[in-house]
Amino acid sequence: MKGKLRVGIIGAGRIGKMHAENIKRYFSSEVEIVSIADIFADKILDWANSIGINKVYKDHRAVLEDKEIDAVLICSSTDTHSQFIIEAAKEGKHIFCEKPIDFSVERIKEALYEVEKAGVKLQIGFQRRFDPHFRKMKEMIQEGRIGKLHIVKITSRDPEPPPIEYIKVSGGIFLDMTIHDFDMSRYLTASEVEEVFAVANVFIDPKISDVGDVDTAIVTLKFKNGILGIIDNSRKSVYGYDQRVEVFGSKGSVAVTNDLNSNVIYSGIEGIISDKPKYFFIERYKDAYIEEIKAFIDSIVNDKEVLVTGRDGLEPVLIGLAAKKSLEEKKTVLVER
Amino acid sequence: MKGKLRVGIIGAGRIGKMHAENIKRYFSSEVEIVSIADIFADKILDWANSIGINKVYKDHRAVLEDKEIDAVLICSSTDTHSQFIIEAAKEGKHIFCEKPIDFSVERIKEALYEVEKAGVKLQIGFQRRFDPHFRKMKEMIQEGRIGKLHIVKITSRDPEPPPIEYIKVSGGIFLDMTIHDFDMSRYLTASEVEEVFAVANVFIDPKISDVGDVDTAIVTLKFKNGILGIIDNSRKSVYGYDQRVEVFGSKGSVAVTNDLNSNVIYSGIEGIISDKPKYFFIERYKDAYIEEIKAFIDSIVNDKEVLVTGRDGLEPVLIGLAAKKSLEEKKTVLVER
Amino acid sequence: MKGKLRVGIIGAGRIGKMHAENIKRYFSSEVEIVSIADIFADKILDWANSIGINKVYKDHRAVLEDKEIDAVLICSSTDTHSQFIIEAAKEGKHIFCEKPIDFSVERIKEALYEVEKAGVKLQIGFQRRFDPHFRKMKEMIQEGRIGKLHIVKITSRDPEPPPIEYIKVSGGIFLDMTIHDFDMSRYLTASEVEEVFAVANVFIDPKISDVGDVDTAIVTLKFKNGILGIIDNSRKSVYGYDQRVEVFGSKGSVAVTNDLNSNVIYSGIEGIISDKPKYFFIERYKDAYIEEIKAFIDSIVNDKEVLVTGRDGLEPVLIGLAAKKSLEEKKTVLVER
Amino acid sequence: MKGKLRVGIIGAGRIGKMHAENIKRYFSSEVEIVSIADIFADKILDWANSIGINKVYKDHRAVLEDKEIDAVLICSSTDTHSQFIIEAAKEGKHIFCEKPIDFSVERIKEALYEVEKAGVKLQIGFQRRFDPHFRKMKEMIQEGRIGKLHIVKITSRDPEPPPIEYIKVSGGIFLDMTIHDFDMSRYLTASEVEEVFAVANVFIDPKISDVGDVDTAIVTLKFKNGILGIIDNSRKSVYGYDQRVEVFGSKGSVAVTNDLNSNVIYSGIEGIISDKPKYFFIERYKDAYIEEIKAFIDSIVNDKEVLVTGRDGLEPVLIGLAAKKSLEEKKTVLVER
Repeated sequence: MKGKLRVGIIGAGRIGKMHAENIKRYFSSEVEIVSIADIFADKILDWANSIGINKVYKDHRAVLEDKEIDAVLICSSTDTHSQFIIEAAKEGKHIFCEKPIDFSVERIKEALYEVEKAGVKLQIGFQRRFDPHFRKMKEMIQEGRIGKLHIVKITSRDPEPPPIEYIKVSGGIFLDMTIHDFDMSRYLTASEVEEVFAVANVFIDPKISDVGDVDTAIVTLKFKNGILGIIDNSRKSVYGYDQRVEVFGSKGSVAVTNDLNSNVIYSGIEGIISDKPKYFFIERYKDAYIEEIKAFIDSIVNDKEVLVTGRDGLEPVLIGLAAKKSLEEKKTVLVER
Repeated sequence: MKGKLRVGIIGAGRIGKMHAENIKRYFSSEVEIVSIADIFADKILDWANSIGINKVYKDHRAVLEDKEIDAVLICSSTDTHSQFIIEAAKEGKHIFCEKPIDFSVERIKEALYEVEKAGVKLQIGFQRRFDPHFRKMKEMIQEGRIGKLHIVKITSRDPEPPPIEYIKVSGGIFLDMTIHDFDMSRYLTASEVEEVFAVANVFIDPKISDVGDVDTAIVTLKFKNGILGIIDNSRKSVYGYDQRVEVFGSKGSVAVTNDLNSNVIYSGIEGIISDKPKYFFIERYKDAYIEEIKAFIDSIVNDKEVLVTGRDGLEPVLIGLAAKKSLEEKKTVLVER
Repeated sequence: MKGKLRVGIIGAGRIGKMHAENIKRYFSSEVEIVSIADIFADKILDWANSIGINKVYKDHRAVLEDKEIDAVLICSSTDTHSQFIIEAAKEGKHIFCEKPIDFSVERIKEALYEVEKAGVKLQIGFQRRFDPHFRKMKEMIQEGRIGKLHIVKITSRDPEPPPIEYIKVSGGIFLDMTIHDFDMSRYLTASEVEEVFAVANVFIDPKISDVGDVDTAIVTLKFKNGILGIIDNSRKSVYGYDQRVEVFGSKGSVAVTNDLNSNVIYSGIEGIISDKPKYFFIERYKDAYIEEIKAFIDSIVNDKEVLVTGRDGLEPVLIGLAAKKSLEEKKTVLVER
Repeated sequence: MKGKLRVGIIGAGRIGKMHAENIKRYFSSEVEIVSIADIFADKILDWANSIGINKVYKDHRAVLEDKEIDAVLICSSTDTHSQFIIEAAKEGKHIFCEKPIDFSVERIKEALYEVEKAGVKLQIGFQRRFDPHFRKMKEMIQEGRIGKLHIVKITSRDPEPPPIEYIKVSGGIFLDMTIHDFDMSRYLTASEVEEVFAVANVFIDPKISDVGDVDTAIVTLKFKNGILGIIDNSRKSVYGYDQRVEVFGSKGSVAVTNDLNSNVIYSGIEGIISDKPKYFFIERYKDAYIEEIKAFIDSIVNDKEVLVTGRDGLEPVLIGLAAKKSLEEKKTVLVER
């Protein structure tokens, strides 16, 4: 590829803006953001201009049909992802798409089919795989430091629940929140989940129950290679975003502890007080969001395989749907493929 | 009560000996060990004499029928517990009995019935409740520090599996090992387990599988008051006895981390290296074993309710049996009472 | 100020390059790097072009005489600092200068006099003041969290000594290395050092002794307001850059621990192993270097006082010279002003 | 030696009582406490009887002249130590004596001379050498884990100052408090202190100044083998007894962190809160006090060299006196021997 990679962005909400700003800051020598589309185009105009993007459209087709564009970042709402992937693939664009691809397995499969047919790259936005702490953990597993894996444990708790309006269309906790943990467990174990069991409750806000969702959940996994997994989720952790992972095996364990706001430790009559974990995903995965875009660029520019594939986008949805079913049926559910 | 409390000990294996030595060292001003019975009486004679116990019998009846004895510690093998409780109760002795009472719910109930009829004290040997770290955790829960409880998480991993001969008669991992975690979860939540789900595997030694047991297990619990619980167990943790508990609620969390061999931290080219957790239960729960006997003495001398009741002995067995069934049936099992 | 701030850089060694790249990445919307001067101009040409700086000179006068330039960053070797400050001030440029200003107090005073006469800004490159951890510590002191300060303790150990050629012209450990700790102690205590005592040795490399320097040192400070200070330095810490600070007072203490390469913790038969501290100042103070430039820009654009003044550049040199004298005379030395 | 070792105790203040109780609890099979002397004999009678000591005297001579007694523990006030050592030696008793031996070097030397002449054992009560954490640290140094030692750092802060009446007769902070740190530094470095420098202040209570003492001090040491040492002391640390040691050398460092009241960690909106250090020396060195008596018994029963010799009692006094002089003269003082 000669010259800069030219990308378009579809959806300029919090995540879309962050990707745009990261590209400007870290990859401007290799990537040019040609245009951006958002259904509230007029609201993002000032912001877009401020970072030097002059073409701002309401219609995503304007981005997709631009022959100059090599790749698109789909950061619009989840219900549009699979459709936009299909359209982008048909236009021959490489695709970075936020998670989840879709709540419908059928639509995901259709999207992946089109991607494969078009021969374009598709990377799914599971940014945690690019977090330096989890990467280091993965490396240590690969180096054999913990021997054969027996257990993977993931704690993932948000500092506060999203608005009820969001929860309503979120696909439920398993497809919205646990989906990242399903991905992390697959990444670390290098195996597929066979059986899922879920138990859950509503502790934080009865309105979450009213819209048919839960706010606290425990999911047990059994992988093809026999590894056992546990995930615990809460929509509200008052001390901040709790993101811990532990893998245990025949030669020991590796844990990633929380990333704190600072290394400051106060000792007083109240005890020994450390700082709280970084507030939420934007702060916690700041570096990971940069690294995932770097990897996406690298996969296109150097024609490498993407590090989070379409299949990696599909599997956590399958696991999430199994978890949902398990919660209803109070029994182990096999992941259907 | 005037004069010293007079106790007899039945069973002088590792635990029985430890209790005897602790009584001698810490409670000799209030308690006299009158006699001890063990099926290998001749093998323990020297040890018994060395700590000033002169009456050593082969037959436990010699202890039970001694009119001078106020209380007995039953530290013999599990298969004798319920029978000896019944006999001791009939002789009007107060009873401290190691866990589990029995693998048969019927026999446990019968034993508890005899205890109640006799009006004697019965304390079950769940020593972890007396560990200062878990006690502090319990206090903090009671003070409302974490608000309403949502999740209780227990990690319990042994440094190495017991001999296969022991595993054969152990009642299986849930009644032998997880039973302590079931007890801890009831202690911390002050609620009863309603539903149990278990998943497990054999990673450590295929012989464990041969005798019908597992060596790695994850158990999910749902309590009457809605709290969710997770326990993960392994029979072999190469870095030592892993005993961590975390409770999470509306106002935060409290965790008990591992008790390390020392506070020494080495920094070198390999990294920053802390000492390992205390090797096993004897080292880790050294203080707890003393405290549980202190509490037992206190309950008799001051006629107080025991801190670990017969019911506390029964419940974890019911949960363990439910876990066993869940593992076989791959579904949630209600705890039958 | 309308339009971008236009800066020139004098000296494009490791630090000069880093500042240039940080400006490009983080402040390109507000700052333009107009030109750069380095005595090895031809060696930096490619690098300069790659980040969009086209004017590259051998002679620093070319930068200073450019009427378009508002401010200069002096990143050349220490022996040129005071001279370049004087010249830059005479040209009416705002000045950011790396530490130390000079080894000669007289020359520093002359430079500061010229800066004052010219009415330009001068910020000295004590980047640690901008480290988020130390800033948080400073805030906590200011909030009164530790009450009245009694003791400040600083550990500062490099991962490896610089080349002997560098040590020769470094001004000695107190003016090259401890100088940062002197600055940190003034920053945290908000007081001036009155008395200094130093003890030292050569453990790491006898060549360091040959050139009249030491590699391991302990400096004790007494501040005007009575606070006591301790600094310990080593030129070689095999586990990485050791940068810890602790302040202790009537209501408790605040400590900043080392910033580790990752939050990964391994548990194995060797013990519980955390990652090592970040390797050296470039990694450890990555954010601080960005923040100090941000503050320098802010002080010019918004006509604010700089956060590290010329006086802040002078004082640590005075303390360092007192330390040197103390080491020779084996007694307390008053800081001469 | 056949039969039990028979000891007498002189002085039944807090420390004397603690030793008596420890002997009763842990060493009653090998040691018999025959008698105890205290100037307030009537006040300790009940306590003495409660632990089975029936002979209680006002006059220490009654203990010393008892032919049945093999060894004495001198736990009376400091001003009596050297005199009682001399008397005990003359009576042929083995001696355990609390620190310091005396504030007068001459009297210490006289006492040591009498001990040597009599050929009895003398162990000085520097209990920290028996703390399992510091022992482990010492072992790691001996194993060569940190290579050649460069720096030893000791932080020792009390939770609150003793009464002014005590401070008056304490010999000053260096002979009362720092003396333990001087001993620890000798223990860890296996070298003698050559030069001392001290700086200090009064922050906590002006009355401490009125009686000619200080409450906050920093002492710098230089050892014969070149190692550098730093000690920082405070009479009042609101978060509890702060007892940390760090040794640094060519292959890394070993640190002993504080021993906390529990392993409980609370996470809430205030941050991540660990428990405080154990309150004071009685709690912190509980095990060390038992171990030092065990070692003393062992040295007599098995005729071994004591682990803390008379010389170990003398040296810290010499260092403390040098520190005192350094504080007055504001210069390095050589330790006079």
